[in-house]
Amino acid sequence: MKSLMLVVLGNTEISTVPGISVAGATPELTKLTPPADAEYLFYEMPRIIDVIPVTPEGHPTPAIITKAARELAGFPLMIVRAGTYLAPLVPHVHISGHVGRDFRKEPALPEFGEIVRLAKLFGEELNKTGFEELVIGESTPGGTTTAQAVLRALGYDARTSSASPNNPTDLKERIITEGFRRAGIEAGDLAERPLEALRQFGDPMIAAVVGISMGFRKNVVLAGGTQMLAVSAVLKGLGENMDRFMIATTKWVVQDRSATFLETAKEIGVITYAADLDFSKSEFRGLRDYERGYVKEGVGAGGATWLAVKAGFSPEDVSGKVEELYRRLMEMKPSL
Amino acid sequence: MKSLMLVVLGNTEISTVPGISVAGATPELTKLTPPADAEYLFYEMPRIIDVIPVTPEGHPTPAIITKAARELAGFPLMIVRAGTYLAPLVPHVHISGHVGRDFRKEPALPEFGEIVRLAKLFGEELNKTGFEELVIGESTPGGTTTAQAVLRALGYDARTSSASPNNPTDLKERIITEGFRRAGIEAGDLAERPLEALRQFGDPMIAAVVGISMGFRKNVVLAGGTQMLAVSAVLKGLGENMDRFMIATTKWVVQDRSATFLETAKEIGVITYAADLDFSKSEFRGLRDYERGYVKEGVGAGGATWLAVKAGFSPEDVSGKVEELYRRLMEMKPSL
Repeated sequence: MKSLMLVVLGNTEISTVPGISVAGATPELTKLTPPADAEYLFYEMPRIIDVIPVTPEGHPTPAIITKAARELAGFPLMIVRAGTYLAPLVPHVHISGHVGRDFRKEPALPEFGEIVRLAKLFGEELNKTGFEELVIGESTPGGTTTAQAVLRALGYDARTSSASPNNPTDLKERIITEGFRRAGIEAGDLAERPLEALRQFGDPMIAAVVGISMGFRKNVVLAGGTQMLAVSAVLKGLGENMDRFMIATTKWVVQDRSATFLETAKEIGVITYAADLDFSKSEFRGLRDYERGYVKEGVGAGGATWLAVKAGFSPEDVSGKVEELYRRLMEMKPSL
Repeated sequence: MKSLMLVVLGNTEISTVPGISVAGATPELTKLTPPADAEYLFYEMPRIIDVIPVTPEGHPTPAIITKAARELAGFPLMIVRAGTYLAPLVPHVHISGHVGRDFRKEPALPEFGEIVRLAKLFGEELNKTGFEELVIGESTPGGTTTAQAVLRALGYDARTSSASPNNPTDLKERIITEGFRRAGIEAGDLAERPLEALRQFGDPMIAAVVGISMGFRKNVVLAGGTQMLAVSAVLKGLGENMDRFMIATTKWVVQDRSATFLETAKEIGVITYAADLDFSKSEFRGLRDYERGYVKEGVGAGGATWLAVKAGFSPEDVSGKVEELYRRLMEMKPSL
């Protein structure tokens, strides 16, 4: 296998703002989502908490798609702790324990330099190996808000997607406006200063993926939705050629009319792939609801499907395996 | 490059017993040696302390050999934190933060199971990649004493080497005797219970290397001296076939008459390679003293040389690069 999948974990205080993130049953539980996602990829259940991450309505984490694709295709996976409250209880590459701060009150990531530097060193080592492609996913509750803030600061008129069918666009806008006021900038003011946009409004995931992508000089598949647009925009701002990059996401992100995924990708100049997963026939409401705009993407679901498809499996094979995994979960936790 | 080098970091309280370890300028400083070694491999100087690890007499860490071989051959390297007081300020695979306890007073490693399990998961991921060989070095001050205790518990009449020309054999024996008394066992009593030997007398490095080696099913080069004998003995005790293992060390370990390297390797049934490095012509006493039995091995020096030799460099090339690196250090720190 010439591809390596990474799942990069980040937290930002923004995820605890009520209404901003549904990547957890409660705002407080979003703090545990990144390590729990990572653990679920390795075990039958997370260890840090004895249930998989769910939305407040009980929809399962997209890690279930990544896990399904991985069980089919057997690609190697490494977890990267870019910056989280807690370490996942799986072997993982430690970059930092710094979480992103609430950018309405202070710069989000004073430690961006250290995170980018260490992540770049890691990418440089991977570049010496036989791997020809990195597929980099993420788990970062609240990350679409930091992504949108970074994109705006860089001058993109982007709206990012959300794990909720009711994208809290007004709330995101208010938070970003407050952040820009605190920092004394307006949209586009940091177009020439991508690292300052990262420092002021970013999160550790963005910093780590930027660093890894700068160290690894071969193909990089940014496996995520609109958050990976922010990563792409920072990389482009730093002078990286977009030709070796692709964003792999799911059809649910592409179809989200509250966001501007394809438009912004085109503006940045990065090509995209959308995994054509279909959960409409699932026997479980938690999965069928993906078709209604719940969850949509995360934990590299689209990129993992990309790897499974390259290995000869179909999106239907992946959906079928997801169904099987969800059945296993229901048998263990009938309350899900 | 089909080989990946790992350097596994461990601490044990045993290293702070006066006289037991010279892998640091003072017993207290041995606590910093593993992260400082790891950092020196990535930077011009460690970051956690602004000087490379040295013996009390000022002999430089064998990390200088590993760094030299790496600069020549360009093999990929990952640091693994098996269990240390402090995290290295380089990207690293986190397994645990548990250090080995003083086995005279209590079992050394109650957490052995968790460390072996996590390390095995990491090895399993590496097994899915194109890597055909892992070269696993270590930095574990005091580790020859834990290694000797484990070997004795398993029934090997082994004496391990030391980073000092005056191997503290009597002190090691006294400490091991005290440990055996505390645990209520005699030499060989744990021959059928290798994990209990690890729990009672081991250190996190041994546990992690055992776990990684069980997860990765292809060739493993155990890059170290007599400490890797303990790893081999535990692996053999767990039923692993020794055919895919080799210990790569330096001639200085093989020539150490106070230890039983070749005899014990033969008894275990693991083949060995000894890097034929020669520092006798060095302009620096710190390096010439390697020929007098100082330091000898560590941080995978022998295994890194093995990788450089496989890449077409000679041991003389490695020695020449070491000389160059040491000159650079002296220019930065004339006090060395």
